[in-house]
Amino acid sequence: MSVPNLLLLSSSRVHGHGYLEHARAQLENLFKASNVKTVLFVPYALRDHDKYTALVRNAIAPWGYDVEGLHTKENRGQALRDAQALFVGGGNTFVLLRTLYELQLLEPIREQVLQRGMPYVGSSAGTNVATSSIHTTNDMPVAHPPSFEALGLVPFNINPHYLETDPNSEHKGETRDERIAEFVAYHCRPVLGLREGTSVRVEGNKATLLGDRNAKLFQSDGGSKELPPQADLSFLLSKD
Amino acid sequence: MSVPNLLLLSSSRVHGHGYLEHARAQLENLFKASNVKTVLFVPYALRDHDKYTALVRNAIAPWGYDVEGLHTKENRGQALRDAQALFVGGGNTFVLLRTLYELQLLEPIREQVLQRGMPYVGSSAGTNVATSSIHTTNDMPVAHPPSFEALGLVPFNINPHYLETDPNSEHKGETRDERIAEFVAYHCRPVLGLREGTSVRVEGNKATLLGDRNAKLFQSDGGSKELPPQADLSFLLSKD
Repeated sequence: MSVPNLLLLSSSRVHGHGYLEHARAQLENLFKASNVKTVLFVPYALRDHDKYTALVRNAIAPWGYDVEGLHTKENRGQALRDAQALFVGGGNTFVLLRTLYELQLLEPIREQVLQRGMPYVGSSAGTNVATSSIHTTNDMPVAHPPSFEALGLVPFNINPHYLETDPNSEHKGETRDERIAEFVAYHCRPVLGLREGTSVRVEGNKATLLGDRNAKLFQSDGGSKELPPQADLSFLLSKD
Repeated sequence: MSVPNLLLLSSSRVHGHGYLEHARAQLENLFKASNVKTVLFVPYALRDHDKYTALVRNAIAPWGYDVEGLHTKENRGQALRDAQALFVGGGNTFVLLRTLYELQLLEPIREQVLQRGMPYVGSSAGTNVATSSIHTTNDMPVAHPPSFEALGLVPFNINPHYLETDPNSEHKGETRDERIAEFVAYHCRPVLGLREGTSVRVEGNKATLLGDRNAKLFQSDGGSKELPPQADLSFLLSKD
């Protein structure tokens, strides 16, 4: 088994598909390879934790997997140690990260994922918090976490729900590319623009782009390039 | 003279107009009424402070106003006390607010605006920091301010560059309205969605919507309503 063992989805929903449906094969590949039957779900990015956990349960129960909510556990540290796999759902990235800090869950999650090899699945905000920091979230900052540094399970940043701005727009707010370029200018760190329907699969020191669309890589030198489906992203795992 | 004396622009650029051109009459009305000849510009929301100050100078010098950059002043507190008017430019709201905290400028600005009645003009990020907090900025969080609480020159929040999301979009990221509703749900505070080309003018306890488009008010109870050009917004100044 490779450590870390990650699946980072751009989004849980894709136009024309049910919740998580587009990612079923990706999820099942991961779960089967790691003999996962029950997933520990982290619902903190949305307000109604029970409802959110039920949404995920209803989506993947038909595929043969059970879902438990971390928020229902009295001893969250023990629940993490016992978990077969962790799924961190999307919603508001600021709320999610603030809650992870408040509940002191960052270190226990890092330990389970990076040392024990617990499979980690993230979607949208759950993908943002898996990376170096949440500096490249699209969300509105409705909550103030003590830091934007996140789990750092991979040493680069991801922009989920990545899309080009309509070049014919008359709107004068910054485009997505301008926003990401601003982050790169301040931090000199690469950002992977992950379009809806695509994912990053990390197995040990190997990373691969999944899904049938390109990703756009914003390089730390300010340049950018398109990467095709199935592209080898392993170079992004090197911290140099 | 009414205190406070504010002009809060949604944006400095509007499709089909030069930089600040759409707001010329609004700016000149304010400057003439307060006998302003020189504007103290706060350029911290962008990286190149000299270039940004020159951009503003070139825009309003032809109208007969001089512009000085706060970043060129050795004694910023004295510069604020001497200023005829303050203009806080747009860019990245997080960078702007973090810099205001770092340079300990929030209290001196509040004092000048709320006690001495110094005219304050803000645009986009400069409008966000004038309100209760920057929780309703659209920007990417490229910097981490110690708090999202801002100048509080008005007791509500503004979403600059407000626009409806295209209802035919196949994109699954949250819409602008969903993002603002999320803020309201967490904070129970009203948000004024300020479309490009519109502004809020505050003179003492009177506030008015300027420009020729509606604003959309997201009420603290979760409802929303459209407000027409020239709408009286004074009710938003009451803290109850």
